[in-house]
Amino acid sequence: MKNNRKQILVLGGGFGGLEFVKNFDSSLADVTLVDKQNHHLFQPLLYQVATASLAAPDIAEPLRTQFSKNKNVRVLMDEVTGIDLNREWVTTPHQSLSYDYLVIAMGGRTNYFGNDDWAKHASGLKTLSDAHRIRNEVLGAFEMAENLAEDSEERRRLMTSVVVGGGPTGVEMAGTLSELAHRYFKRDFRQIDPKQARVILVDAADRILPMYSESLSRKAVKQLEELGVEVLTGQQVESIEARKVVLKNQEIEAENIIWTAGVSANSITDNLDVDKAKGGRLKVLQDCSLPEYGNAFAIGDIAALEDADGQQVPGVAPAAMQMAKHVAKIIEEEIRRGSHGDREKERKAFVYKDKGQMATIGRSRAVASVGGREFSGFPAWFAWLAIHLVMLVGMRNRFTVFTKWIYAYVRNKPGARIIWRTVPSKVKAKREKQGFVL
Amino acid sequence: MKNNRKQILVLGGGFGGLEFVKNFDSSLADVTLVDKQNHHLFQPLLYQVATASLAAPDIAEPLRTQFSKNKNVRVLMDEVTGIDLNREWVTTPHQSLSYDYLVIAMGGRTNYFGNDDWAKHASGLKTLSDAHRIRNEVLGAFEMAENLAEDSEERRRLMTSVVVGGGPTGVEMAGTLSELAHRYFKRDFRQIDPKQARVILVDAADRILPMYSESLSRKAVKQLEELGVEVLTGQQVESIEARKVVLKNQEIEAENIIWTAGVSANSITDNLDVDKAKGGRLKVLQDCSLPEYGNAFAIGDIAALEDADGQQVPGVAPAAMQMAKHVAKIIEEEIRRGSHGDREKERKAFVYKDKGQMATIGRSRAVASVGGREFSGFPAWFAWLAIHLVMLVGMRNRFTVFTKWIYAYVRNKPGARIIWRTVPSKVKAKREKQGFVL
Repeated sequence: MKNNRKQILVLGGGFGGLEFVKNFDSSLADVTLVDKQNHHLFQPLLYQVATASLAAPDIAEPLRTQFSKNKNVRVLMDEVTGIDLNREWVTTPHQSLSYDYLVIAMGGRTNYFGNDDWAKHASGLKTLSDAHRIRNEVLGAFEMAENLAEDSEERRRLMTSVVVGGGPTGVEMAGTLSELAHRYFKRDFRQIDPKQARVILVDAADRILPMYSESLSRKAVKQLEELGVEVLTGQQVESIEARKVVLKNQEIEAENIIWTAGVSANSITDNLDVDKAKGGRLKVLQDCSLPEYGNAFAIGDIAALEDADGQQVPGVAPAAMQMAKHVAKIIEEEIRRGSHGDREKERKAFVYKDKGQMATIGRSRAVASVGGREFSGFPAWFAWLAIHLVMLVGMRNRFTVFTKWIYAYVRNKPGARIIWRTVPSKVKAKREKQGFVL
Repeated sequence: MKNNRKQILVLGGGFGGLEFVKNFDSSLADVTLVDKQNHHLFQPLLYQVATASLAAPDIAEPLRTQFSKNKNVRVLMDEVTGIDLNREWVTTPHQSLSYDYLVIAMGGRTNYFGNDDWAKHASGLKTLSDAHRIRNEVLGAFEMAENLAEDSEERRRLMTSVVVGGGPTGVEMAGTLSELAHRYFKRDFRQIDPKQARVILVDAADRILPMYSESLSRKAVKQLEELGVEVLTGQQVESIEARKVVLKNQEIEAENIIWTAGVSANSITDNLDVDKAKGGRLKVLQDCSLPEYGNAFAIGDIAALEDADGQQVPGVAPAAMQMAKHVAKIIEEEIRRGSHGDREKERKAFVYKDKGQMATIGRSRAVASVGGREFSGFPAWFAWLAIHLVMLVGMRNRFTVFTKWIYAYVRNKPGARIIWRTVPSKVKAKREKQGFVL
């Protein structure tokens, strides 16, 4: 590495980190991108891996190949174990990396609000492992129900899924799970009737999708109910046990429990001695830098920022990408100028530009709110489809996903109904204990 | 289930079992297909999942969906734990299944020739888990080498792969691994030069691909060497240790060791008290039935048969499929006739029809032997491509795989370079022990 060049260290290859490296003019400085995974994950489509529509490589693109042709960008697959803001270096199990500028873009993790023991009973949906766990368990539950059809109580439990959290991810999961059971599985089983499957969406708030208008929330509920989802709002989860969700007035026995109710910042923030907001998010100034550390920025889900217009920047991909571009410009300008004066005064404040939001519910069903206008049903769904295809990183992925969606739409069959493990061991073990084995 | 109808029980949804159920006239009897996986796996392309070209769902199709429209076919995802040939039933952890006719088509497993402890150092390539393990380890090794570039011995080891076994699978793995390193990775790393990667193919016999002519074997070696593979024939493996292959005159330090040298029958055969051949294969009569059990058949890799023409039936997909059709006809005829007399005399003997064989080596490189004629290079490779596409189960898979291959060919990029786990823990743990962590 040339030592006279500035070193830019980017932690995390999600939407924020990747967008930063793509936008930053690397003729000005050496850029190192560190991620513990070797790939960028297109999280908005993760629920489609969980519900057996897409394969993992369809929504994951190797970080390294993105920058094959740019010799000033180095990609390291390594785990960030410590950040020392005063000494200006970052440690991993394999190396120590010093920096002139640091961009922390390590995203979030599932937040069980202090009930970390719920994690083993209710999978989150943040990683490919989460998605595969859910896919295995959902598909495996129906297979098991087919094997245990004579036991009606067990069968009912096996065919019940609970999704906790009525945000976009929860809505997408509940809608697609219900479609899977009621639409796609209908002819595939002999001993059970997949139409009897229950999918229950639970939220503590009065209504689902609180970031949308009340009228759009209602339309989302209607569309979910058309697909067979039972929507329970105003229901706080009191506890989650093995295959059981306890609400105030009822308990729901369910083989599959999915938790989409909360996100907190990456655990790397736990040991950072700086100002933090709710969920451990790093409070940043309006230029996205950490207070007192002008050469360290936080962007995306790991940052907490009220922007120059006074709005709380939401934890969505477009916000992370906008912050990334903003920070890239700031650093470029300072390097070009060769120095910096009073950072806070000279640097431009970040303004989040809300281009609208959309959540898909199922085949031809969605809600969208764009530029003050609201859509639902087919137009919203079609817009969702188009935008997510365009956003998908990597030409090949875009094409593959497109053909898979077309096929699934025409043939009414999701394409990735592969269970990884063999016979579901959880139920098997239980059965063996009950002496069921002949 | 209607009790007056005959029950046909098929164990295993591989090429043999699936072909049997597809061909059997299920208006004559109820058919139950049992497999511990929920999908048929297209094993000839498994090496492409291992080498990051295809995603798992591309080569796996749910068994259940194949028979959605046929109400006389029942699919159970369950594990066969016992076969009682005298009482005519099969047990699983969840049920007991009695049969009038039994078709055992449970395939094979990796055979370490009595050295089962080698399994933890050298992955086989029979299952999707094997393929993912290999993909993770191969891709992870290069990532780790990039992180440990200053340690030249470690780096050399990380960039070395040994494939044991010069059959078609070994040749395909070695060729594709070498292409991956030398062709695809060349621009992606900064600290290491992937062209220095070594891929070594080891076989105890005098030559690789012994089922082909000597001249074709030589052509295969030449094509492998053009891709950078080192071919070591006449080299018996004496032992395999952690990241080390011991031959008679040398030891090779290698991060990735892949074992394709042997196949034996599924472990279910261990407890079957019948005549067995090498590798635990079930000896069958020329109608494919077990001696003394005229209503139990074994087909595919789990069976050992010298056919009516005196040739040993090979363990390949076309043979399994031909046996499946043969057995389906025999059972259909007996059910139609309503009885059977002297089975051995009345039943037709199976004759294997060898339609030729081919092994791919890399991009535009392959060998083929069809109807006494031999091909190599591009014509053989193109024929291989076309035949494997046509054979692929499921319209959607065929289309997806086709587009991925076209893309990979044109763009020179494999499409599934996703590492599942995070930072490779094996090396990490070792490094931590050495106090490498800062």
